[in-house]
Amino acid sequence: MAYNGYTTFTAKQDGAILTVTFDFGPVNVQGQEMLEDLMGLAMRLERDRTVKVVVFQSANPEIWVCHYDTNLLKDMSTEAVARSDVKLLDLQVALERISKLPQATIAKLEGFARGGGHEFALACDMRFAARGKYKLMQMEVGMGILPCGGGASRMARQTGLGRALEIILSARDFSADEAEAYGTINKALEPDEIGPYVDALAKRIALFPAESINACKQAVYESIDKPIDEALRAEAYWLYQATSKTPAVKRFNEADIKGMEYDMENQRNWNDLVVAVQDIN
Amino acid sequence: MAYNGYTTFTAKQDGAILTVTFDFGPVNVQGQEMLEDLMGLAMRLERDRTVKVVVFQSANPEIWVCHYDTNLLKDMSTEAVARSDVKLLDLQVALERISKLPQATIAKLEGFARGGGHEFALACDMRFAARGKYKLMQMEVGMGILPCGGGASRMARQTGLGRALEIILSARDFSADEAEAYGTINKALEPDEIGPYVDALAKRIALFPAESINACKQAVYESIDKPIDEALRAEAYWLYQATSKTPAVKRFNEADIKGMEYDMENQRNWNDLVVAVQDIN
Amino acid sequence: MAYNGYTTFTAKQDGAILTVTFDFGPVNVQGQEMLEDLMGLAMRLERDRTVKVVVFQSANPEIWVCHYDTNLLKDMSTEAVARSDVKLLDLQVALERISKLPQATIAKLEGFARGGGHEFALACDMRFAARGKYKLMQMEVGMGILPCGGGASRMARQTGLGRALEIILSARDFSADEAEAYGTINKALEPDEIGPYVDALAKRIALFPAESINACKQAVYESIDKPIDEALRAEAYWLYQATSKTPAVKRFNEADIKGMEYDMENQRNWNDLVVAVQDIN
Repeated sequence: MAYNGYTTFTAKQDGAILTVTFDFGPVNVQGQEMLEDLMGLAMRLERDRTVKVVVFQSANPEIWVCHYDTNLLKDMSTEAVARSDVKLLDLQVALERISKLPQATIAKLEGFARGGGHEFALACDMRFAARGKYKLMQMEVGMGILPCGGGASRMARQTGLGRALEIILSARDFSADEAEAYGTINKALEPDEIGPYVDALAKRIALFPAESINACKQAVYESIDKPIDEALRAEAYWLYQATSKTPAVKRFNEADIKGMEYDMENQRNWNDLVVAVQDIN
Repeated sequence: MAYNGYTTFTAKQDGAILTVTFDFGPVNVQGQEMLEDLMGLAMRLERDRTVKVVVFQSANPEIWVCHYDTNLLKDMSTEAVARSDVKLLDLQVALERISKLPQATIAKLEGFARGGGHEFALACDMRFAARGKYKLMQMEVGMGILPCGGGASRMARQTGLGRALEIILSARDFSADEAEAYGTINKALEPDEIGPYVDALAKRIALFPAESINACKQAVYESIDKPIDEALRAEAYWLYQATSKTPAVKRFNEADIKGMEYDMENQRNWNDLVVAVQDIN
Repeated sequence: MAYNGYTTFTAKQDGAILTVTFDFGPVNVQGQEMLEDLMGLAMRLERDRTVKVVVFQSANPEIWVCHYDTNLLKDMSTEAVARSDVKLLDLQVALERISKLPQATIAKLEGFARGGGHEFALACDMRFAARGKYKLMQMEVGMGILPCGGGASRMARQTGLGRALEIILSARDFSADEAEAYGTINKALEPDEIGPYVDALAKRIALFPAESINACKQAVYESIDKPIDEALRAEAYWLYQATSKTPAVKRFNEADIKGMEYDMENQRNWNDLVVAVQDIN
């Protein structure tokens, strides 16, 4: 499957890793073209088990992904609607679809991520940001709206309520270090560290079975949307979804025959062992 | 609307910021008088869109707000009740009402916040604490009860479960730095920094439209009480609640006509731009 | 009640503290024997109000609790099941029962905690880890499954979603400091600090009434599984569960008669006062 024909980004597959590089006009504006591209990308990825990890980065030296297009925002409805009549917004739909992709998704943030751009980052599984280059802002409250690309919904799923509310109500820039302290990103890294860190992480995940990557993701997302007893049931559901398609039992069988678990050297070296075991299929 | 006639605090409005200063007897005890004042304050604030930010501080040099009044606690029921018959407690009702105010609320913590006092802080949107002056404690477990002014319910909405449980089960003092590390407060600040930080934050939020402040708050609180699909729907609901009353569309229209989003200088200066745009009404 | 007859650990009661020391073969493997022991331990603890705190530690110098036994894993089903037919797994059942014990539980982590071993730590109320000795890993994704002893369900209840996903999808070792920064443990401590810290914490909690310890725990766990209005109702329910069995009202009554709350010296010294008040029964 070829990942080409996009207007707002290029997508390059290398083994099981797809690197998506936003490169659209002067600011990578998040408009109709980008939404269409993202929906198209999601449709392909949902059907593709050869891609296991997607890294989102930017070719723009200052901006990762820009805020939502004012050309769309200026025509926004000003009619209040009843709760029962509310429909999801285009950006919400596109980003929720990105969020639930079967692949592991990584936002490699080497520039500004504000408004809808930051909401896109929040819809990725993991976020890493370059010190000095990254800034996050949700400016919506100052424009007269709220972060409505999933930003209001996803912020407190990364941080406590208090810090989520400060980010959203203050509408100010947050640096990579502050974002790390508040928990919106996994880590703040030096500009020359972020590449190697994301690269190593993507390559490591890409070694693992596509079906267990998906099972892990879906179970974790379900876990915070459900009470613990239902979350555990979902976890068990995803287990058999995985074992029905992965070589898990073969791997455990071989490990058991060899008595690997009782070997202290193995126990010390799990970091390598989990890579070595990928040969058993 | 005048914010006066309170027994346990003074309230002074300056522009869109209301500063509430607790000043009640030797320890700012949280008793009948304070509950009545808080309920009265909440009733007024719910109807007042001229106030956009409320800062809660204390005139007492050592205590922010004291624990719940032993005069009320000594008459507590000792009858177990069935789950179906449980009614909310007075303190829970008052603090939940504070929590859902349409204004942004900030706890400026320059003294002890223990028991119900700390639960009040947890009911505010944001918390900042002064190093050396602030201590938090939930001592309830040692008294034979649990934090029942929303403290048991709100703690893990700020921190992970493990840290919430340590705070509540250890019943020990936590410093500002430990509170920051555990995530119960947004930031620990030096005693001479907390004033300027809270002041700048309050003034910034006070610039923004009251209806978008409210929409942001309510959407964030709803987000963690709902699965993601319902949270997104709530977010979209609050969008139109905001746009029906704020100049959002005018602002986006003007930005679009001027082509502001494509100007890299604007993109670099969003921190100021979101302030400048307040002129467009 | 005697805590003996276990195969995989010893359990020693000292006052209200039960110290459980895993000591089973070369690696403390988490297999049939350990599950049986944990279920047996849980059954006794659920009925025992003389034990108020349980500390889980290991006699093995390198491993706290090992991953789940490959002897059980190799016979895992490979049949996908419908969501409606899913049954909880043995490890999930055992750990959920540990998680909801009426006692406060502390994982004292002075060695590796990987796979099911780490999921056991996540089922404890609090976690402290020794620098240099502790490593956590969820290697399941690399084996072809997911963390299915509650690990996928409980990780994001300690950290934000992004960090939970990185831990589970990367299947790499995390150090004590990284675990503290990500929030899976309460604190990283030096190897010579962890003993005194956990000891002091356990002894402090052990002073408090068993029924209020339980009420605190259950209310906190319920709080994140419910929307805030239902969480508050649960909190009020647990209040009367506590007051019906603890000397709470006596303590508040005595404090009130003595006018203790208005004494600034008392307010300064709550850290000791909550211990001193244990004499009132």
